[in-house]
Amino acid sequence: MRTPQNVGVAGATGAVGLEMLAILEERGVPPVAVRALASARGEDRTVPFGGGDIPVEPLTADALAGLDVVLFATSAAVSSEFVPAAVEEGAVAIDNSRAFRMQPDVPLVVPEVNAHAAAEHSGILANPNCSTIQMVLALKPIHEAAGLRRVVATTYQSVSGTGLAATRELDEQTRAVLEGSPVITEVYPHQIAFNCLPHIDEFDDEGNAREETKMILETRKILELPDLAVAVTCVRVPVVRTHAVAVNVETEDDLSPADARTLLAEMQGVGVLDDPDAAAYPTQVGASGTDEVWVGRVRRDRSVEHGLWMWVVADNLRKGAALNAVQIAELVVDGLPL
Amino acid sequence: MRTPQNVGVAGATGAVGLEMLAILEERGVPPVAVRALASARGEDRTVPFGGGDIPVEPLTADALAGLDVVLFATSAAVSSEFVPAAVEEGAVAIDNSRAFRMQPDVPLVVPEVNAHAAAEHSGILANPNCSTIQMVLALKPIHEAAGLRRVVATTYQSVSGTGLAATRELDEQTRAVLEGSPVITEVYPHQIAFNCLPHIDEFDDEGNAREETKMILETRKILELPDLAVAVTCVRVPVVRTHAVAVNVETEDDLSPADARTLLAEMQGVGVLDDPDAAAYPTQVGASGTDEVWVGRVRRDRSVEHGLWMWVVADNLRKGAALNAVQIAELVVDGLPL
Repeated sequence: MRTPQNVGVAGATGAVGLEMLAILEERGVPPVAVRALASARGEDRTVPFGGGDIPVEPLTADALAGLDVVLFATSAAVSSEFVPAAVEEGAVAIDNSRAFRMQPDVPLVVPEVNAHAAAEHSGILANPNCSTIQMVLALKPIHEAAGLRRVVATTYQSVSGTGLAATRELDEQTRAVLEGSPVITEVYPHQIAFNCLPHIDEFDDEGNAREETKMILETRKILELPDLAVAVTCVRVPVVRTHAVAVNVETEDDLSPADARTLLAEMQGVGVLDDPDAAAYPTQVGASGTDEVWVGRVRRDRSVEHGLWMWVVADNLRKGAALNAVQIAELVVDGLPL
Repeated sequence: MRTPQNVGVAGATGAVGLEMLAILEERGVPPVAVRALASARGEDRTVPFGGGDIPVEPLTADALAGLDVVLFATSAAVSSEFVPAAVEEGAVAIDNSRAFRMQPDVPLVVPEVNAHAAAEHSGILANPNCSTIQMVLALKPIHEAAGLRRVVATTYQSVSGTGLAATRELDEQTRAVLEGSPVITEVYPHQIAFNCLPHIDEFDDEGNAREETKMILETRKILELPDLAVAVTCVRVPVVRTHAVAVNVETEDDLSPADARTLLAEMQGVGVLDDPDAAAYPTQVGASGTDEVWVGRVRRDRSVEHGLWMWVVADNLRKGAALNAVQIAELVVDGLPL
């Protein structure tokens, strides 16, 4: 066991990469143990770390040498190329893209839900989709208590899930609308300012968005319920940061909202905020910057024998991406946290 | 039959009242036949109509005399007082509030769906909740073809549904966030700019928002399916105008997405916009100012035997409120349209 471990962040200049660096810093990882990598060439850049700046190195196979763990906040295409290279160089790779998530030999891990799965890795571990992570944290205790029969989920996803360019586009379009100037669309196919788009990632032949299929398949894999009935519609909303998911759950056995709240409050990584008469429920602005998955609006759905509604909110850049990836690293890499 | 009929708009200075006036004008009702009424006293006001302005009279029982039909865009409290007064004065009252909607002797009408119900009125007809109107237009042809078994709906509702003060609050809060100034909340209990609030109207003892209960009960009444299984979560989103509803439908019989699209396209008042590969689906900005209920993202939900998803978008001030009210008036008042 070497201490400190050498940690690489690939895709360090993106929204998730910057958040990974922030979380490593919060955990006390010293600058000397961190290297920032990014695939975009021709740019001399630095990223903030440890009160100063650290250089951003080009992401190449050679640059991965000497790292003990690499957190990948890169696209599926970039991850497909460099995750195996990192493993080849002896590192453990935690990948945030969809590239490896559904491979049978790659654990797909939410530490509070299926930490045991992480033990069986062979160098690569996958970080789930952002909306999936927050949903499975809320579903896990419900399933253990009452057995999931069917889940119907719709999302309210923030633009930071698309990346920094989308965050800028929301800002610029919003200013344009307020000024009465023309709205320019580059990242999204339609105006996102003051608008909702039921379109996240590409569509398949049946009209499902890939984000919807991800949430179905990844939920089944993480919960180890390969036949679980899951239906999903994903929607981008004009919110900067943090995703919300309205989750309708049908269970085998009865579970009262009060008991569900108790179980959720006992679940590691979950916070319950549920007093609607006092306007206490999770919101995206309220949850931004926090580590918890927040659950509110827990109530019966009387349209089925055993139905529950939940409103599940989490910071998509932290628990939905960077924090979960760092937690996976801490599970499997000796000497982390440092 | 008298022509022209005298039409009153009560609540004429609000978001829905102004839209009612705009629709009456579009339909060629002359200014001489229209009177604008509002309950807020002490304000000398006019509202635009017919290329000029018409005065706003105080809403009193006396002021209702001589009107043949009164469109009420007022609160439940104001409607409870003045709708019976209008009927007393010999007018037909079309009420947009929740005050009379669930009374057995008051027809709750969406003309394309249950025009026949309008015939049995005794002076009062109720205009349904905005989100309900657009949902039942999409559900009706699905039900006729395949039989509804269960509906699970979540909403993405714009701030104009709350009224003009909420529209101003979204504008002002958005400017404050962009400028880095403090955000002031008056209409909503939390910031609505760049945020979603799962909170529309008051909560009952079981934690259901009244808007959610309205959608359940009104859908059953309009579709004449008193036992229909309906589950709803309502969410306010930072959008100025037009509501979207993600509708998950389970049917008795199989209905392919292609057949559903055909039936929806044939339904009066519905437009289908559904080619996601070409980014063609309804959005709130795109549908604002139109009269149709737009449906897209029609696809199978494979989590149940016969499942479908739809994304249903309509201008909440037009088809969701003012237009539907005017259409009801045209159904039951001889001489309308003028």
